Amino acid sequence: MTELNETHDPSLRSWVESANDEANGFPVQNLPYCVFRRAGAGDFRPGVGIGDRILDLDALAKAQPFTGDAARALAACQGPELNALMALGTAAWSALRLALSRALRQGSALRDTLEPLLVPQSEAEFAVPARIGDYTDFYISVHHATAVGRQFRPDNPLLPNYKWVPIGYHGRASSIGVQQHFPRPVGQTRPSQEGGAPAFGPCARLDYELELGVFVGTGNPLGRRIAMEEAESHVFGLTLLNDWSARDLQAWEYQPLGPFLSKNFASTISPWIVTLEALAPFRLPFQRAAGDPQPLPYLASSRNTAAGAFDIRLQVSLSTGRSREQGAPAATLSRSNFRHAYWTVAQLLAHHTVNGCNLQPGDLLGTGTLSGPDVSEAGSLLELTQGGKAPLSLPWGESRTFLEDGDEVTLSAECVKPNYPRLSFGASVGRVLPALT
Amino acid sequence: MTELNETHDPSLRSWVESANDEANGFPVQNLPYCVFRRAGAGDFRPGVGIGDRILDLDALAKAQPFTGDAARALAACQGPELNALMALGTAAWSALRLALSRALRQGSALRDTLEPLLVPQSEAEFAVPARIGDYTDFYISVHHATAVGRQFRPDNPLLPNYKWVPIGYHGRASSIGVQQHFPRPVGQTRPSQEGGAPAFGPCARLDYELELGVFVGTGNPLGRRIAMEEAESHVFGLTLLNDWSARDLQAWEYQPLGPFLSKNFASTISPWIVTLEALAPFRLPFQRAAGDPQPLPYLASSRNTAAGAFDIRLQVSLSTGRSREQGAPAATLSRSNFRHAYWTVAQLLAHHTVNGCNLQPGDLLGTGTLSGPDVSEAGSLLELTQGGKAPLSLPWGESRTFLEDGDEVTLSAECVKPNYPRLSFGASVGRVLPALT
Repeated sequence: MTELNETHDPSLRSWVESANDEANGFPVQNLPYCVFRRAGAGDFRPGVGIGDRILDLDALAKAQPFTGDAARALAACQGPELNALMALGTAAWSALRLALSRALRQGSALRDTLEPLLVPQSEAEFAVPARIGDYTDFYISVHHATAVGRQFRPDNPLLPNYKWVPIGYHGRASSIGVQQHFPRPVGQTRPSQEGGAPAFGPCARLDYELELGVFVGTGNPLGRRIAMEEAESHVFGLTLLNDWSARDLQAWEYQPLGPFLSKNFASTISPWIVTLEALAPFRLPFQRAAGDPQPLPYLASSRNTAAGAFDIRLQVSLSTGRSREQGAPAATLSRSNFRHAYWTVAQLLAHHTVNGCNLQPGDLLGTGTLSGPDVSEAGSLLELTQGGKAPLSLPWGESRTFLEDGDEVTLSAECVKPNYPRLSFGASVGRVLPALT
Repeated sequence: MTELNETHDPSLRSWVESANDEANGFPVQNLPYCVFRRAGAGDFRPGVGIGDRILDLDALAKAQPFTGDAARALAACQGPELNALMALGTAAWSALRLALSRALRQGSALRDTLEPLLVPQSEAEFAVPARIGDYTDFYISVHHATAVGRQFRPDNPLLPNYKWVPIGYHGRASSIGVQQHFPRPVGQTRPSQEGGAPAFGPCARLDYELELGVFVGTGNPLGRRIAMEEAESHVFGLTLLNDWSARDLQAWEYQPLGPFLSKNFASTISPWIVTLEALAPFRLPFQRAAGDPQPLPYLASSRNTAAGAFDIRLQVSLSTGRSREQGAPAATLSRSNFRHAYWTVAQLLAHHTVNGCNLQPGDLLGTGTLSGPDVSEAGSLLELTQGGKAPLSLPWGESRTFLEDGDEVTLSAECVKPNYPRLSFGASVGRVLPALT
């Protein structure tokens, strides 16, 4: 999906006026998917974002305005999840994008059909947009891996496998949500003296992780790998993902089988999936730093070298109980960019399936924390505060090492370049509630 | 579910003659669930095993032979998965078990209704009996953890957290199957010299793991833990689970986030779920060895101490291409017992949810390899062959360190005690095919 087509024409404008406002980030060139309903009313259904509105695709499907592949794809946009659309593949996705682009452009003959089917985003509530069969989290920022590794192994921060293996592990699908408010997790932490009993209580080192999530479109049968050349054709789109982490629980539990209760209490995505096709104008070459090993052949393709990476700007911001009381704006904690990742989306799929593991429509792959090369670009408090040793000062007079009750973390992302409308990923918003007793 | 009731009366006999044959293991006291269809015909549907037959519960539901809770539970036994029944809870499960027990006993007035709904097991094919939303694998045999740890850390085999934390991690749900034939996985393995490039090719150290699987019945909402006292009421039943493992892939990939491609290419369960209620006569006290720490309060209950464990005999057997050609019987590789586990089923649920993680009906929890205290009771080749150093001799003249192409591994389990019919778990059967190129 690196090819540009008429849907990427930067001069296109929509008859939905708010879509033409740069600040909004949902121009007719974006068309991100969600699952929504009018707050408290009716069934959840697929929608597509345009300006400050959502086009109700379930209702549109009933109107049957399209033909061919686009009609087939639109017919799959019914029910409370996008899995059926995700299963159809690139031809159907592209056809629906083109049909929606044409229908939402200024001068569209379908305006009268579509206009009654627009719902203000401010009146909507959102659901997780797919039935996520399996959730896998990767670890593809070498900057994050190095910064975290340094806290455990100062002399040897990066393990020997890191530059060869796209490190990943399975996560919990059931606790993924949108706009989550969740209680601070409780659990065991390392004994204060060696050989003693562990402590038990509310997590004292609660953190966020700034990630992107990759929604799998078409899957692969068990036993058949996905080759690099085809990998991106299996990807439906990208979302924001906050992989909340309980650092003190993690340090005690993670050997030898990896993180478990330190991660699976909540993971918050954005309601929006920006399609791979919408991101075509923001592709970048993928290159390894001098001295780094080249990927093994099963992780390499000419297409990946030419345009495997993405220019997606990322941001984390924080509000607290006190800041909201004072009416202070949320504080930006860090900015990063997906372009700094050590592995590409295509490599994640090729690696995940090289052993025959089957992916299914709606599966979610997290990138891992997307820290950039500079310490100010770190995607977690663990890094920003040097493991809690260097508190962050917040503009309204508080400071933080790790998250406190009432803290609300917002992840956002955007694609920006000259002479092209700004694309937004919406936001992942989650808030920490006090631990349950 | 430690209480005995009329369904556990050892003198009960069924009008299905084969159910009264000890060799069979599916007496009227067992009544395990499955999802099946006549081979190649019709839709998959819930069934219950009786003797060498399966009672078609979908067809029985249409006949509406029961009333009250049993009728409500039976009505949930339609469609290709047991999730709806699993979600109903203990009162419904018990009522259905009692109604089925009465209907299948000698002298039942419902014999004429049920007899046409019996399908020979030999004519059935099976499906995974539930939509498994999330699969978690634990590590609850201290004997396995010690034996494996010794290969990596001879002086310090057991990590400091082991006797405090029921170690677990998330696994892959999509690749769980029944009666699987799967290609040998391919992947990266450790470089032959430090700092060199990893090798890439078919796994050379392919292993099985003898486990039980716990099917979750009713779940819990996100943020609300399940207390020890209630934990077993959330468990629907137990199955066999072979957690195939690629040891060479695992050794290279698993730091720092745990096993990934070394485990997720296939996991084979038995088609049968033996309910917790059926296992009531085989409960045992749960006690810690002298000198071991007592579980933290959130992992303790008087009920767990009194009867938290299970007396379930386990067995692994192997056939190979050559043994099947020669008509030789499969070789028994080891025998073990679930009673040796370091943590109980109730503790797994209490631990999994203590941080607020939500379980859902149909979730599967693996126990981890159930090795016993003696080396002959080891549940994997890694242990039985001391990491490949001590090949096993097979009766037909071959030997094995790890699995070769064509090898078929069968896990089986049974409950046996004097004056009670033998209960079988059926079998988990999987075969290794050559790696795909």
